[in-house]
Amino acid sequence: MAVDRTKIRWNGWGWAAHKDDVGPREIVWTWLAGELGMPALLATPPRPLDELTLPPTKLFPEDHAALAAIVGADSVRCSPYERAFHALGRSYHDLLRLRAGALESLPDAVVYPRSTDEVLALLAYCKAHRIGVIPFGGGTSVVGGVSAEYGNFDTIITIDLSSMDRLLDVDSISRTATAEAGIYGPALERGLNAKGFTLGHLPQSFEFSTLGGWICHRGAGQMSLRYGRAEDWLVGLKLATTEGLAAASDAPASAAGPQLKDIVAGSEGSFGIVTEATVRLMPLPEASLYRSYMFRDFGAGSATIRAAMQDDVAASMIRLSDVEETRFLRTYASIGHAGSVQRFGDLYLKVRGISREPCLMIAAFEGRRMRARSALHHFSRIAAQYGAVSLGPRIAERWRQTRFQAPYLRDAMMDRGVGVDTIETAASWMRLETVYANTRAALENAIRETAPREGARGVVMCHISHSYSDGASLYFTYVFPRALEGDIAQWKTIKKAATQAIVDNGGTVSHHHGVGEDHLPWMMQEKGPLGIAALRAIKKAFDPDGILNPGKLIPP
Amino acid sequence: MAVDRTKIRWNGWGWAAHKDDVGPREIVWTWLAGELGMPALLATPPRPLDELTLPPTKLFPEDHAALAAIVGADSVRCSPYERAFHALGRSYHDLLRLRAGALESLPDAVVYPRSTDEVLALLAYCKAHRIGVIPFGGGTSVVGGVSAEYGNFDTIITIDLSSMDRLLDVDSISRTATAEAGIYGPALERGLNAKGFTLGHLPQSFEFSTLGGWICHRGAGQMSLRYGRAEDWLVGLKLATTEGLAAASDAPASAAGPQLKDIVAGSEGSFGIVTEATVRLMPLPEASLYRSYMFRDFGAGSATIRAAMQDDVAASMIRLSDVEETRFLRTYASIGHAGSVQRFGDLYLKVRGISREPCLMIAAFEGRRMRARSALHHFSRIAAQYGAVSLGPRIAERWRQTRFQAPYLRDAMMDRGVGVDTIETAASWMRLETVYANTRAALENAIRETAPREGARGVVMCHISHSYSDGASLYFTYVFPRALEGDIAQWKTIKKAATQAIVDNGGTVSHHHGVGEDHLPWMMQEKGPLGIAALRAIKKAFDPDGILNPGKLIPP
Repeated sequence: MAVDRTKIRWNGWGWAAHKDDVGPREIVWTWLAGELGMPALLATPPRPLDELTLPPTKLFPEDHAALAAIVGADSVRCSPYERAFHALGRSYHDLLRLRAGALESLPDAVVYPRSTDEVLALLAYCKAHRIGVIPFGGGTSVVGGVSAEYGNFDTIITIDLSSMDRLLDVDSISRTATAEAGIYGPALERGLNAKGFTLGHLPQSFEFSTLGGWICHRGAGQMSLRYGRAEDWLVGLKLATTEGLAAASDAPASAAGPQLKDIVAGSEGSFGIVTEATVRLMPLPEASLYRSYMFRDFGAGSATIRAAMQDDVAASMIRLSDVEETRFLRTYASIGHAGSVQRFGDLYLKVRGISREPCLMIAAFEGRRMRARSALHHFSRIAAQYGAVSLGPRIAERWRQTRFQAPYLRDAMMDRGVGVDTIETAASWMRLETVYANTRAALENAIRETAPREGARGVVMCHISHSYSDGASLYFTYVFPRALEGDIAQWKTIKKAATQAIVDNGGTVSHHHGVGEDHLPWMMQEKGPLGIAALRAIKKAFDPDGILNPGKLIPP
Repeated sequence: MAVDRTKIRWNGWGWAAHKDDVGPREIVWTWLAGELGMPALLATPPRPLDELTLPPTKLFPEDHAALAAIVGADSVRCSPYERAFHALGRSYHDLLRLRAGALESLPDAVVYPRSTDEVLALLAYCKAHRIGVIPFGGGTSVVGGVSAEYGNFDTIITIDLSSMDRLLDVDSISRTATAEAGIYGPALERGLNAKGFTLGHLPQSFEFSTLGGWICHRGAGQMSLRYGRAEDWLVGLKLATTEGLAAASDAPASAAGPQLKDIVAGSEGSFGIVTEATVRLMPLPEASLYRSYMFRDFGAGSATIRAAMQDDVAASMIRLSDVEETRFLRTYASIGHAGSVQRFGDLYLKVRGISREPCLMIAAFEGRRMRARSALHHFSRIAAQYGAVSLGPRIAERWRQTRFQAPYLRDAMMDRGVGVDTIETAASWMRLETVYANTRAALENAIRETAPREGARGVVMCHISHSYSDGASLYFTYVFPRALEGDIAQWKTIKKAATQAIVDNGGTVSHHHGVGEDHLPWMMQEKGPLGIAALRAIKKAFDPDGILNPGKLIPP
C-alpha cells in the first residue's frame, strides 16, 4: 500500500518512469526558444546520483542505534538515495541544486516511524541529544519547506511520515475521517471513495503529497471552492511535540478560546509533527460538469468570478487565465497540429465578436446531478452577462485529465536550459488588479534584467485559481531563459522582485504554497513584529530547544 | 449615535425602561411555581444602587490625571453607576451578585478611549504603572468574561470601547466593511443596511453587544448557518497591545503560517484590545422565509438537521427544541389563552398521527427570493421524510419578532425567586446524543440536589441551534427554584455538574459563549497542557506583564 519511494525522482517531479510526451516534439522547443528570444535551447541534463560525492553522515553510531531501537533498524536509512531524496523539496530553486548535485546539506539519516508513540520517542531523543529534525510528508514543498537545514545543530535527521499511512476510521454519521498524516492523496481518496466519500483536496501535487503536508502548509486544492482549504476541512489532530502530545478537540466549532488546529494549520513542522488528523468529508459527487469559456479580457473574466462568488454560485472550481497564459496554452496545445486548432479558435471567436486576445476560463460544478446543473446554469448566466463565449466541455475535460501532468514539464524544460517557476498570492478584490499589474511588471523586468543575452525575455502568465466573496488568488507561472552561470542568483533576483511587489501592494506572501525558507524574508512585513513574536512564543512552548525544521516559517 | 449607557440596566438585562409583558400575568407565575414543585414563588427584588456602599476607588489621583491626559477628563469616570455597570457581565451568576449588591470587586475607573492610539497609550501607561485592565465592549458576557478581577494588581481600570463606534469603510467591491470595535450591533447593521449589506451576526445579545465582543469571544449569531461565526466573517483587525499594535492582513485567505485573526478570535481581551475589524458582508436578503415544523421526537428532528447539513441545504437557521422545551414554550405561550392554543395544537398533531410529546423546529431561509424558496422546499422535503408536520410561518415569525426578548424574562424570574441559566456546547453528530442525555441528567440531578425544599425540581430544556455537516451545538436552558440561602453555591454546583458531563462526553466547553472565568476550570481538560502552554506563550508575547483581563481564558 505504501508508496515506493525508489520509483519517485529524487531530483525532479513524480514517477521516474513517467514519459514526458512533449520531449520528442522538437517543434515545441523551437517555438519555445522563439518565445524566449533565444536562438536555440541548450541541453542541460541533470547529474546522476551515482556521480555525486555526498558528505558522509554525521550521525553517531550510538544515535543511530538509539533511533533504530525506537523504529527498527530497517527504518533508519542513510543511503545516498534516501539522503538525496530528502535533501530538498521540489521547487525550481531546489531542482536547480538537485540537478547540479549541489547537495551541501542533507539529512544525516532518514527515519520512518510507524506510530505517534514512535514519533514522540524520536522527538524526545532528538531533543535530549541535540539533533535537529526535519518533518517530511511527500516532500513536494515548492517554498523550501523541507530543506535539510542544520540551523544550530551538528546533526539532523528527517522524520519521514510515509509509513504512517493508514486510514483509521470513517465516521459516516459525522461524515468525518481520521487518518495517519503520512497517507498520500491517492491512497486517502481510494479509502474514502470506497465508502462513498471524498475529501476533495486536489493540489497539483496530489499524487505525491500527504495529508499532514496539506495541513502543515495550509494548502488549498484545485477544487477548494467546494471542498475548502486545509484549515476548513481540518476538524481535529494529534500533534507530537518534544514536550509531549497535543490533541485538538474534534467539536465542529468551539468558542473555547483560540483553537489548536488553527495554530497547527500552516505551522510547517515548526511546532510539532502532525501524526493523525480528522477531516470533514463530502459525498462523492454524482455529477462533475466541466466547462470552458472565453472572455474578451482578464477584467471581464475576473468580474464574472467576483459576481459568481458574491452570488453564491456553487462552483467547485473557477480558473481564469490571463491573456498571456491563454495565448501560451493555446499555442502550446495547438502547435503539434500545425496551428489548425488555434486558427479555428481564433476564427470562431472573431465571428462571435470577441477580441483576438481573449482569456480562457475553466470551471467545474460538482455534487448532486440537479444541483451541479443548476449551478452551471447559474454561472453561465453570469458569464454571459460579462460577454463570455461558452466553449463547451472539451477544453475543460482535457485540463481535468492532465491536471497533474504540468510539473513534469518543468523537468523537460530544465533539461533544455529553460527556467520555470511559479509564485502566488491572494488579495481583496479591491487590490487584485494592482497586485496583478505590479507583480507582472516586476517579473518581466527581473527576467529581462537577468536574461543570459540581449533580446532574451520571459513569458509571464497568470491565472486566478481560487476565489472568495472578498478576494481571490493570483497564480503566476513564468518561463524564462536560464542564466547558466549564476542560475540560483537569477532565481533569487526574480523571486525577490515579484514577492516584494506582492507584499508592497497588499497581497499575502502566499495563498497556498506556504512560507518555508523562500518566503521567510517577507514574514516580518506580512505579520508585523508582534505577529512574529506570537509565532516565536508558540514555537518556544512546543519546541523549546528549537530542534524542529530549522530555518522555516519564523524569521530568526 | 452612541448608546446611552445610563438607560441600560446596571444589574439586569437591557433597557431600564423595558416593560416585561409577563410580569402582570399572575397565572404564569402560578403555573411556573407548579412546574418547579413549589407552593408559591417569593418576591426577591434586587437592591437599588443608591442603597449600596461601594468600596472607594483605589485609583491614585496622579494616575487619574494621566489617564485623563490621554482620553480627556470626561472620559475617565468613577461614578457608582459606571463602576457598578462595569463590575460584572450579565450571566445568572453575575446577576445574583449584582442584584444582591455584592460588589466586592469593581473597576477603580472606567475609561472611554476614542481611537486606537488612545488605547495604545492607555495600555502603555497601565503597563508602566502596574494597573490591570478589563477590556469591555457591551458587557453582556454570560461566562464572566468582563468581571472586574484584580488578579495581582492593586488597581484596575475598565477600558470601555463604546466610544469607538464608527463604521469606517464599506468596500462594496470586496464586500467587506471596516468598523471600530465598540460599535453596537444595531448601529453596525443600520450603517451596512443603508448600503445594501448585512453582517447578519445576530446573537441574542445583538442589541447590547459590540463587534469587538463578538470577535473576542468567538461568537455565533442565530443565523450563523448563512452568515458564519465570528471567526468566519472576520477578515482583518487591529489589536492594540501593551507591546504596540498588531495588525492582521486582510487577504481573503493565506498560507503564510498561522493567522493572527485566528489567534485573536476567542482571545477574550487576554492578548490585547481589538480596536478595529474588517468583516465579510452579505447582501441584504431579498426574502426571509420563516417556517416551523413538529417532529415526533428529538431524534427525528436531529436526523433532519443532520441530513439537511450534509445535503448542503441553504438554510440560515434551524432550531430544534427538545420535548421539554417544546412543552414549556407551548404551555407558556398558550397559558394566557386558557389553554386553547395548546389544546388546538395537540388535537392537530394527534389527527396527523404525531406523538403527544412532539418537538418544535423553527427554520429560516434567506437570500434571493427564488433561492430562499428553493432552499425552503429542499428542507421541507427532507423534514417530511423524517415525518415532520409543517406548521407554516406563524410560530416562527412570532419567534423572530421576539427573538431578543427572552433575556428580559430572566430578570422577571429572578424577581420571584426563580433561577434561570443556560449552558451550551457542540459535539460531533456521533457524540451528540450521549452529550445530550448525560448533560440533561447532570442538570436534573444537580438541580434536585440543590433544591430549597423536598419535591422541588427544575425544568431542563434544550435546543439544537447551530449545526454543521459534522456536528451541532446543544443549548440548554434550565429554570429552577433558587436556594435563597447559598444561591451562588447552588449555581456553582449545577454549573459544575453539567459542564463536567459535557466535557467528559466529548463536547466542547463552549460553542459560542466563550470561556471567561466560568469555564476556566475545564480549560485544561479541553485543551490539554500543551494547548494551554501555547495560550500562555501567546499571552506572554502580547502582554508580558499580564495586565489584560486577569483571571479569564487561561488557567493560572
